Amino acid sequence: MIIIAEKLNGSIPTCAQAIAARDEAYITDLAIRQTAAGATFIDCCASVGKDEFEALKWMIETVQNVSDCPISIDSPDVHVIIEAMQLCKKPGLFNSVSGEGDKIDLAFPILTKPEYMEWEVMALLCDDSGIPKTATKRIEVFERIVAKANEYGIEENRIHIDPLVEMLCVTDDGAGVSIIIDVMRHIKAVCPKIHISGAISNISYNLPARRLVNQAFAALAIGAGMDSAVLDPLSRDLRGVIYAAEAMAGLDDFCAEYMSAFREGIFKA
Amino acid sequence: MIIIAEKLNGSIPTCAQAIAARDEAYITDLAIRQTAAGATFIDCCASVGKDEFEALKWMIETVQNVSDCPISIDSPDVHVIIEAMQLCKKPGLFNSVSGEGDKIDLAFPILTKPEYMEWEVMALLCDDSGIPKTATKRIEVFERIVAKANEYGIEENRIHIDPLVEMLCVTDDGAGVSIIIDVMRHIKAVCPKIHISGAISNISYNLPARRLVNQAFAALAIGAGMDSAVLDPLSRDLRGVIYAAEAMAGLDDFCAEYMSAFREGIFKA
Repeated sequence: MIIIAEKLNGSIPTCAQAIAARDEAYITDLAIRQTAAGATFIDCCASVGKDEFEALKWMIETVQNVSDCPISIDSPDVHVIIEAMQLCKKPGLFNSVSGEGDKIDLAFPILTKPEYMEWEVMALLCDDSGIPKTATKRIEVFERIVAKANEYGIEENRIHIDPLVEMLCVTDDGAGVSIIIDVMRHIKAVCPKIHISGAISNISYNLPARRLVNQAFAALAIGAGMDSAVLDPLSRDLRGVIYAAEAMAGLDDFCAEYMSAFREGIFKA
Repeated sequence: MIIIAEKLNGSIPTCAQAIAARDEAYITDLAIRQTAAGATFIDCCASVGKDEFEALKWMIETVQNVSDCPISIDSPDVHVIIEAMQLCKKPGLFNSVSGEGDKIDLAFPILTKPEYMEWEVMALLCDDSGIPKTATKRIEVFERIVAKANEYGIEENRIHIDPLVEMLCVTDDGAGVSIIIDVMRHIKAVCPKIHISGAISNISYNLPARRLVNQAFAALAIGAGMDSAVLDPLSRDLRGVIYAAEAMAGLDDFCAEYMSAFREGIFKA
């Protein structure tokens, strides 16, 4: 599982305060702990208005001072991401593009430059009409994104697709989840090299005992092909459920990885 | 979810000791707590040799002294189950038959008697050749069992099918799980009224942090149609994952049941 560690995000109130106060200790603590827990990328999302780039610059530099983990530059503004890429010491994750406006035509040419050939990119399955209400429509957005990737020569294994996980509590028939699962199965069937991703904790917004909803969704999504996720690598039970679901998906012969992760203390009895 | 509460089973060492010592306090405590936790049936499995019926009789009577919950009479010997049915104050679960020998032809005629018309029955997908190694072969056993049920006039909604959950740690590619999931999906597609069941904790034998493996499997199985399970109703996290997975399967509009189960304390934050 490719882990995009989610804790450094300005949409989290305590993190927003830390960013506003330029609280280095807060950022370095979470950067160190998320790295130690096995993050593949450390997501940095400033989530502030006019000073977004300055805040992001500070976050990225603060993280890189204490961690070698690649950065996921998380912004709705592709111009901000492109500018921030120059700050990164290692190839990271361009988070994100989507079918909206000219995001892809701005981002993909950058990702084909020699200095950025090792960067990966997260693409969300929404477009100018918003988040499509059906699996078919999201797959149409997916197909447009893949066509563009082929046009620009971006290999499938550099692409992460986020089908856009929505709140479980607002759907009256689990429709949100069945759409996500259908889209994941389709992508795995047609483009097995593309990473299937998503923000696991989005599923549990406004529900109690969110950790259990996140665990159930992670197991279902991994069963449908998810191999990348925005999540909290410090959530031990979630990590254990993910290792178990990967073994159930045939990705861990004789549960060897599950057992060694347990021995390493990534999750507990 | 139909919950067949698993704690009163002679294959559990502490329970075996309690049965041998006729320790009423042990049995009544678990009967009361499993009933309070929402068990649909309380499984009673003596799992002892020549004195099985006497032990089972004592267990069933001890449980019925403190609980109104229907009994699941659990024995490999259909003769013992048939004899024990007379001890039950309420219609219960005949646990179990399978494609082995003449079990079905012994059990199904009893289940069509007027006094037993409200009993349900658990059928395991194995036969005289053992546990089939492929989904196709298990589905063949399923088809033979359904044909017999139709022949004897036993309604589909009285039947629980256990596709036989095996240990995850012994399969080198998650094959055991994919077989189970395929069989569950098939049954749901062809006989939607038949209950799809299984012993959830079998999946995690010989693994550490079994609770997390059980939770991952429960989510996957519910996604494939499981609506009945042999489990520990006192496992709060598992209960929460089950409520969450049911909402994801479209069985709980707006998570109303999930929320009320949380308020009742069935699971916690």
